[in-house]
Parts: sequence; structure tokens; C-alpha cells
Amino acid sequence: MSRILVVGSVALDNVETPFGKADNVLGGSAVYFSVAAGYFASPSVVAAVGADFPDEHIKLLQKHKVDTAGLVSIPEGKTFRWSGAYGFDLNTAETRKTELNVLGDFRPVIPSEYAEIEYLFLANIDPDLQLDVLRQTKRPRIVACDTMNYWIETKKDSLTEVLGAVDLVFMNEAEAREYTGEYNLVRAARKILSLGPRYVAVKRGEYGALLFGEGSIFSAPAYPLEDVFDPTGAGDTFAGGFMGYLAHAGSFEAGTLRKAVAFGSVMASFTVEDFSLRRLTRLTHPEIQERMQSYRKMLELEPNHV
Amino acid sequence: MSRILVVGSVALDNVETPFGKADNVLGGSAVYFSVAAGYFASPSVVAAVGADFPDEHIKLLQKHKVDTAGLVSIPEGKTFRWSGAYGFDLNTAETRKTELNVLGDFRPVIPSEYAEIEYLFLANIDPDLQLDVLRQTKRPRIVACDTMNYWIETKKDSLTEVLGAVDLVFMNEAEAREYTGEYNLVRAARKILSLGPRYVAVKRGEYGALLFGEGSIFSAPAYPLEDVFDPTGAGDTFAGGFMGYLAHAGSFEAGTLRKAVAFGSVMASFTVEDFSLRRLTRLTHPEIQERMQSYRKMLELEPNHV
Repeated sequence: MSRILVVGSVALDNVETPFGKADNVLGGSAVYFSVAAGYFASPSVVAAVGADFPDEHIKLLQKHKVDTAGLVSIPEGKTFRWSGAYGFDLNTAETRKTELNVLGDFRPVIPSEYAEIEYLFLANIDPDLQLDVLRQTKRPRIVACDTMNYWIETKKDSLTEVLGAVDLVFMNEAEAREYTGEYNLVRAARKILSLGPRYVAVKRGEYGALLFGEGSIFSAPAYPLEDVFDPTGAGDTFAGGFMGYLAHAGSFEAGTLRKAVAFGSVMASFTVEDFSLRRLTRLTHPEIQERMQSYRKMLELEPNHV
Repeated sequence: MSRILVVGSVALDNVETPFGKADNVLGGSAVYFSVAAGYFASPSVVAAVGADFPDEHIKLLQKHKVDTAGLVSIPEGKTFRWSGAYGFDLNTAETRKTELNVLGDFRPVIPSEYAEIEYLFLANIDPDLQLDVLRQTKRPRIVACDTMNYWIETKKDSLTEVLGAVDLVFMNEAEAREYTGEYNLVRAARKILSLGPRYVAVKRGEYGALLFGEGSIFSAPAYPLEDVFDPTGAGDTFAGGFMGYLAHAGSFEAGTLRKAVAFGSVMASFTVEDFSLRRLTRLTHPEIQERMQSYRKMLELEPNHV
């Protein structure tokens, strides 16, 4: 199985939505990403946790084929904690509290045995650290990155350097607009592409994603669900399914990219069905295939001909 | 050519967007609808204007194959006027002023020669008038309707009766949510379908539309444009392209419906490229086909296989 390396956060979350609340639950970009990617490839995580991080979470990751050898536990530290809430409009989280804890001093060290992994996802961390990770690897075959408004506002130059060094960029639409200063998404995407990456996946919450490449656009709707419980982690799950499928397919052709977006969307649709990793960790391959089948049908312009 | 009847508004609009402004320009649901539908079928309009309505607008409609015999001019009246503005988020208009004028007393009279037209679009007018129009026709083969928040709030029972009497409902997502009391769109669409219509097209502005049928969903993205100038009329243009294609195809099969949504989306993408009807009235069939081609590509999950 192809290997994927993800560098990002492992968190303990408190989440409240109109449909319930969950306290002290497993979260973090590297967690959602790796569990989703694990359905397609072999993910390894580089991240830090504190002494308070429950062993059961590590066991859960390992059970889902996530290699946790790069998960550093800081004995005197506490795990990164995020508290957030959503209203009925589940597209935007209201952050109530962020406790960086061990994430504040996190300086990822890539174990030498990971340096040759061909697929790398730089989840949303300080762009200077993302660059540092790149320097510690032997230029993986495919590098993707994510970011957030905070880095756009505080470390734009470093972020620009990251964007110029990766193959694939994940951003949500507000970030793409803020980073480029272009409200229009087509223009925003073109500006980002002009910096170097071959593709930009613009995430739009419940509206899905647009994949922009040189002269091409693929529209990937979100899978419509009757019950959306908690959108936390949907974006990282999307990236995990996306990169996992890419690694599995072993190609970077246009058709592969489109299927990767579709699998990313399908995986994200499971994450939002329950709090934390609950749905994602009790998922079966037949369920993924079945939903992919109905996702595919939703896109067919000529259903009788396919 | 198949005939389509539209009952709705003809307006003179003042529109301001971040990209410019246009005063006293042609607008109204029946206008956008019929000009768009005219590229596929033969539209007839039933609407009212005042003595101030410029003759050049009527000539423009006629030049675009719109039958204006049902366009009643009230000598002592003034044309319906709408003034609105958009910010960079072009999804929502801020209405600055509405002068109903002749629309306030409008009671559509369907000329007997229109009573057998097979395709009918009840644009956004008082649902009691929509019901009245239905009583004046010999139950067309396909009836579609649109509505707005005002009628949901003031005439919900009549609107429910309309929804139960039509084949196809056009609503934007906020309206679908407000009417059903369901924030979740899948649930909202199911509730509307349970009242009788075979399909609900939920419009989502720049995010496109979702077509819900019994057990099926088709996701139709908006065509991504580098320059969106003025979204006024996009929804009615969408309905016009949609119904025009349906009438042209002469079928109500699932595949036809999907292509109709796609043509509706393509037509709407032209409308927003300029103020008022400017882009829509200088459109050519090759331009429509070309954009449909690239729209189709944007939906292809397996571009190498199609």
C-alpha cells in the first residue's frame, strides 16, 4: 500500500451543534486526515500530544492503520484543545476557545524513515513549519497543503513560499478570497495556480468543492445528507480521502484527480454524520463504495447513457 | 416550436453592484424567463406594464421571439419598478425600493388562444393569482412555479395549494428552508415533494442548483465565471432555460430534466455577465452550445471515458 505522511494537529475538542454536544473528544487535522486516508493507503502521522492524551485514542488510530510512530508525546505538556460551536448554518464554526498547549512549541521532526514517503500532506500549521518539513523530506512525489486565515494574516510571505513549493493546495473559499484579495473564485484560483501548484481544491462547506487546474474546473458537490450532525473535521477528511485515493491510484492525471475529489467528498460526508471520529471509525469499504455510487449518479448529466 | 406561457412581472429596474450601476433598465421575471426560453421554444408572456414602458423594450422582446400579445398596457398606470443593490457577495440582493404600480392590481387574464399551451411557468406572483391562472388553462402538460419569502409569510395556504398543483417547483434555498421549517435541504425538498410536484429545483445562487426528484438528486453547479456583473434575473433565466429546454425536448424523463437544469444554469451564467438583458439579448446559439460543452466537462467524473 502506498504511504502518506501527514504533519498536523492532534486535538481534544469540545463541540456544540444544534443537534447535541461532545466534550473532550478526539479531533485535529492530522487525525481526521489520516483515518480517512487509511481507507485507501498507509498513513503516518507526525504530530505532538500532551501527557493528557488518552491511550485509547492512539489505539483507535492504530486500529485504523495509522502509523503513530511519529506522534510525539510531551510528558510535561497538554494536548491542543479546541472548543467551538455551530448554528444551523453548519458552514462556519464559532471558535469559543483555543488552547495551543503543545502545539505552541511544536517543531515537527520527520523521522528519517519517513523522508522518502511519496505523498505528503502539510495540514494547517505555521507555514514556516510547513517549509521546515519540506526541507526534511526528499521532495515527495506529491505534496499538498492546507492553511487558515490566521496564517494569511500573520505569515503571508511564508505561506506564499509554501504555495509555490506544493503540487496541490486545499483552501476554503473565504481563505482563497482573503489570500488573493479577489472575491471572484475563478480569479482567486488562477492567482494561486500562478504561484506554482498544479491544482487548487477550493472547499465550500455544504456546497462542496471546486477543483481548479490549468484550464480545467471540476465541480464536486457535497453529498447531500438528511442528517448533518457536526461538520468538524470535514475539510481534513476531504483532504484525507482525496490524498488517500491519489496515493492508491498512483497517478496525477486529470481523471484521477477528479475521482480523488469525489472520494474526498464522500469521506467528508461520513465525518459530518456524527461527532468527532465516530462515524469515520465505524465505516466499511462497502459503505464507501455504495455512497460513491450514489455520488456518481448525482453528477451524471446523462443518466441513461452511462 | 413548442410553446411556453409565462405569467409574471415586467419591470424597470435600478441596479447597483460593486462593478457599476444601471438605471431604468428592462427587468422582471417574465422578461428574463421568456428571453431565455426563446432560445429553445416559443414563449408567450402574460403581464402588465404602464404607459411609461418604452416601446423599444417590447420590440426587443419581439425580436427575441417573445409573443407579447398578452402584455397588457395600462394607460393610466406605471410599470413595476424595483431598485436593488448587491455587495461583493452577489448571492443576496438588498432591495432599496419596490414600487408595485400596475403589478399591485394585476389580475392575469389568459387569452383563450393561450389556454392550450402545454408548458406553463407561474413566475413569482401572488399564489392566489397563480391558482387563478391555473383555472384559466386546460391543465398544461407541465406546470412550474416560483415564489418568494413574502408569499411564504403572508399566503402560505394558497402557496401550498399551488405547490400541490404543479409538476415542478423553483425555489431558492432560503425559501425552501423558510417554507418547510427545515434547515436541512434534503429534508426541505422531501417535504415539498410530498405535496405533489415531481421535481423541486432548489436554487443556490453562485453555488448552482440541486434538482430533487423521487429518490434522485442531481447537482448542477453554477458555471464559474471570472466576471459576474449583475445577478439580477439569474433565477428567472435559469427557469427560462430549464423550461425552454423541456419544451424543446418534449419529454419529462429524468435525463431530460438533468439536461434542462444544465441549460438553465448555462443561460443564467450569461445573464449575470452584464446588466439587465444585455448579455442575454446578444447571445448566439453557438455560444450556448460552447458553454454547455464546457459545463458538461466540469461535471465529468471520468473525463477520459466520456
